[in-house]
Amino acid sequence: METFSKDFLDAARGLTPADAVFKNALVFNPFISGWERGDLAIKNGLVLGIGTYIGKTEYDLSGSYIIPGLIDAHVHIESSLLAPREYARLVTLHGTTTVIADPHEIANVAGAQGIDFMLTERSGTLIDIQYLLPSCVPATPLDMGGAMLDARDLKQFIGRDGILGLGEMMNVPGVLSADPAIGEKLRLFSIREGHAPLLRGLDLNAYILAGIQSDHECTRRDEAEEKLRRGMYIFIREGSTERNIADLIGLVTQNNVARCCFATDDCHVDILFEKGHIDRCVQRAIECGLEPELALRMATLSAAERFGLSDRGALTPGRRADFCVVDGLHQFIIKRVFVLGKEVNPAYSVPLTSPPSPFSCRIPSADEIRIRGSGEARVIGLVPHQIITESLRYTIVAQDIPDLHRDILKVVVCNRYRDKECAVGLVHGFSLKRGAMASSISHDAHNIIAVGTSDAEIRMAIEEVIRSRGAMVAVVGETPTILPLDCGGLMSTLPYHEVVKRLKDLHTVTERMGSIDDPFMYLSFLALTVIPSLRITDRGLFDVREFENIPLFIQ
Amino acid sequence: METFSKDFLDAARGLTPADAVFKNALVFNPFISGWERGDLAIKNGLVLGIGTYIGKTEYDLSGSYIIPGLIDAHVHIESSLLAPREYARLVTLHGTTTVIADPHEIANVAGAQGIDFMLTERSGTLIDIQYLLPSCVPATPLDMGGAMLDARDLKQFIGRDGILGLGEMMNVPGVLSADPAIGEKLRLFSIREGHAPLLRGLDLNAYILAGIQSDHECTRRDEAEEKLRRGMYIFIREGSTERNIADLIGLVTQNNVARCCFATDDCHVDILFEKGHIDRCVQRAIECGLEPELALRMATLSAAERFGLSDRGALTPGRRADFCVVDGLHQFIIKRVFVLGKEVNPAYSVPLTSPPSPFSCRIPSADEIRIRGSGEARVIGLVPHQIITESLRYTIVAQDIPDLHRDILKVVVCNRYRDKECAVGLVHGFSLKRGAMASSISHDAHNIIAVGTSDAEIRMAIEEVIRSRGAMVAVVGETPTILPLDCGGLMSTLPYHEVVKRLKDLHTVTERMGSIDDPFMYLSFLALTVIPSLRITDRGLFDVREFENIPLFIQ
Repeated sequence: METFSKDFLDAARGLTPADAVFKNALVFNPFISGWERGDLAIKNGLVLGIGTYIGKTEYDLSGSYIIPGLIDAHVHIESSLLAPREYARLVTLHGTTTVIADPHEIANVAGAQGIDFMLTERSGTLIDIQYLLPSCVPATPLDMGGAMLDARDLKQFIGRDGILGLGEMMNVPGVLSADPAIGEKLRLFSIREGHAPLLRGLDLNAYILAGIQSDHECTRRDEAEEKLRRGMYIFIREGSTERNIADLIGLVTQNNVARCCFATDDCHVDILFEKGHIDRCVQRAIECGLEPELALRMATLSAAERFGLSDRGALTPGRRADFCVVDGLHQFIIKRVFVLGKEVNPAYSVPLTSPPSPFSCRIPSADEIRIRGSGEARVIGLVPHQIITESLRYTIVAQDIPDLHRDILKVVVCNRYRDKECAVGLVHGFSLKRGAMASSISHDAHNIIAVGTSDAEIRMAIEEVIRSRGAMVAVVGETPTILPLDCGGLMSTLPYHEVVKRLKDLHTVTERMGSIDDPFMYLSFLALTVIPSLRITDRGLFDVREFENIPLFIQ
Repeated sequence: METFSKDFLDAARGLTPADAVFKNALVFNPFISGWERGDLAIKNGLVLGIGTYIGKTEYDLSGSYIIPGLIDAHVHIESSLLAPREYARLVTLHGTTTVIADPHEIANVAGAQGIDFMLTERSGTLIDIQYLLPSCVPATPLDMGGAMLDARDLKQFIGRDGILGLGEMMNVPGVLSADPAIGEKLRLFSIREGHAPLLRGLDLNAYILAGIQSDHECTRRDEAEEKLRRGMYIFIREGSTERNIADLIGLVTQNNVARCCFATDDCHVDILFEKGHIDRCVQRAIECGLEPELALRMATLSAAERFGLSDRGALTPGRRADFCVVDGLHQFIIKRVFVLGKEVNPAYSVPLTSPPSPFSCRIPSADEIRIRGSGEARVIGLVPHQIITESLRYTIVAQDIPDLHRDILKVVVCNRYRDKECAVGLVHGFSLKRGAMASSISHDAHNIIAVGTSDAEIRMAIEEVIRSRGAMVAVVGETPTILPLDCGGLMSTLPYHEVVKRLKDLHTVTERMGSIDDPFMYLSFLALTVIPSLRITDRGLFDVREFENIPLFIQ
């Protein structure tokens, strides 16, 4: 209510000049999903209104379109590989002015201190980052990463600037069985995000009855339509590899656009840099046949309203003057971006603080990662373009591994939080012909995971991850290529163009090693115990359907 | 979050029977502005979901339509002439299950105690009454009724059950000039209702910038469209005499229906009884060409969302099982009504408490209401079907009043809160040929106002109002006909059918007196100093444009 002053009201009435007036553009108005012509007047970072105004500064935007700042309704910043300030810098250039982020990854590594870090870094950004507190740390009771967060741990964040609600509730069975610990978390907040892939019918009714309001995991149109009908908000996702716009966008109509938003969820820096952020979603939606005005409605007011952010999402009196300027709608290229009325051209800056980056582990000995025995073995099978895995069986003899002919490689997981024995398994599908790779990104516990064609290279890759206190590493012979992830073992503190370059270097090396595309992405999901079928954690092979650890060789 | 329990979730999943299941109806779903078929299952008054369910009780509603409970987005209950419980009983039968009420009238009479009364009476109703605190008591600094409420007075109500926000801010000039006392009130609440007839352009921008979010005073389509574009919620009103649906409903589209609601504002008991409440609005909107589904969307989810009432407005899991049953959409007749899952058939009950009903006044003497002098006089001119008045001039001689030939009658206003001299003026347009009428409803200060053809009948009418401690009275000769308004001088505590009967009796008498239709309505607005042109208060004639008292005769 800072706007209730003679200064502000006189300026809105045109009795005194505005700070800035943007003239001759078409301004997108999400309240009518349409355009209007008029001067957009700004004072103290807020919109005075559209009308005929005089400004101390005037901009002529003839031929351009002004669009309220874009909003990402659900993202894990950590997945970009960038620390929050640098992430913000990159997406700002793409017209994003607000992101709703769930610091689920860093919380699994560093608990409340990880969330603290993400909150502290908000202050260094031009855009507004609003956080939802991660609801599932650890992802399952069996997954011991660096932290556990119960309702009491989350409660301490209530009321802090930048905390909006509870993040995606992935534990669907726990919700449906009324797990009291989940109830405690749900009761803390009035905004509660969902994660319920393929959940339908009566179980979906129960999940909504439990208080969960949104879903970003729809992959089928009829699934998304059912969820909309049941009153959920639907975030249509376009991440690095999870791309749902083509399948889902056809469901968006004038009737339901107020309940549909865009989200990127997990999106690597290279995609953000080369293809964009929410601007990429808008562009893609238009390519898939959605009216531009509905796509823009989703990217602005719909997301603001879903989160009760009544101070943004449209350029009406009293709202934040966050907006971007484009030259055309079918080539949706962001030309200029204004946050709180000021044009942004952000510079790189290092993080203010660091999160804990625990690496209380040692390089496993050659003996520890040796496979012994022979017989019928369980082998994790990659599925191209999917994060599910298959549970394969091969007859093997230990000393014949790696079996390059049948593409069976060794995979190693080392707990990075505790000095304990590592786990060794077998994987099919990476197609490596030489070398090894390792990473400290390994959902959701984020232990160290490595795959390779020789024990020496595997050990060296792990060693480089530990030495960097977090990294993505590819090793060929004795030559490592490293993208350091010095920020919790998940994010880099380097400038984004440098991270893009190093990621490309890594991909060049893995390609030379014979790898499939994006091997680090597949590697990062091999330990994800909530998605079928066969996984490997620091405790060994894990059968997701039976929800239990199982031995490598079938007895 | 009472729904997060094994009991509730098991029932939603169909593992245990629901309390009640409503089968074979088409259920209106405002999220898609459409219909779905399926069993509607209820437990503990809340919706479990739509699907295939078994219930302890099952209802066969073949051939019927189920519609979420209707919501009135803006009403003054006092204007019905009924006390809150009886008002609730009547509108419940018309399918209304939530009303958003502004106790502006009783607050002008009895201040905080009047609001307390309205809050206490909530407990006796089946439907949910949510109040907005009156922002303009008195309506203007010159209008001294029974109370003044500043921000401190309003603040004491914050956090009480049934208080939702700040009621209609009618003092537009005060807002535009940044009156600090108004700022203090606006800062108290995040929900702030507007009242800005014909406000447009830059001044509208300023009014919205001040934090005001809605308007129910639009009378022109382009005015309403402009306000929608500026981000306001628009309540389309159909009251007793203020009927805007025919002019405005054409603006409602799928694109903006989420921001459009229905309101009745001021609606007498006879209209409510004979023609309905929000069901009447829906019916009228359909008659005027709106798709039934959009009309129902306005009457349900749109209103719930405007007020952040996420527990109602749709029959999705976890929301209140408030709904009504109709047989058809083009004859929109409410057959059955359910509140929190239970069918309602409410009985009459007297109010739990009474508000103060101050009548610290005496009957004016014959001498006090005598007009003296002659010459050119200012005469208030009624305008048929409008609440504006004209400022007329007639050459008169005092002793010729009443001038039945030219229809110039005496009008008297007595302050009912203080023993002071009354004011006397002249009015054209009532067309009375004999008798007098008086009322304790006189916006907004609610002093006693009377008009008549003889001083004796005027004095007797006033006497009956005072003796009843509030009433509408018609007197012919020495015979009074009385509708007692024992509740603050504004509302009756009688059953609604009795109030309807007495109102009809009054109208029969006034008709015999030669009156125009609805004379009490016109009478009640003669003292309303915020609407042009000429008014009369207890301080005398009032020129609204000059905002000052003026003498009867032109000097």
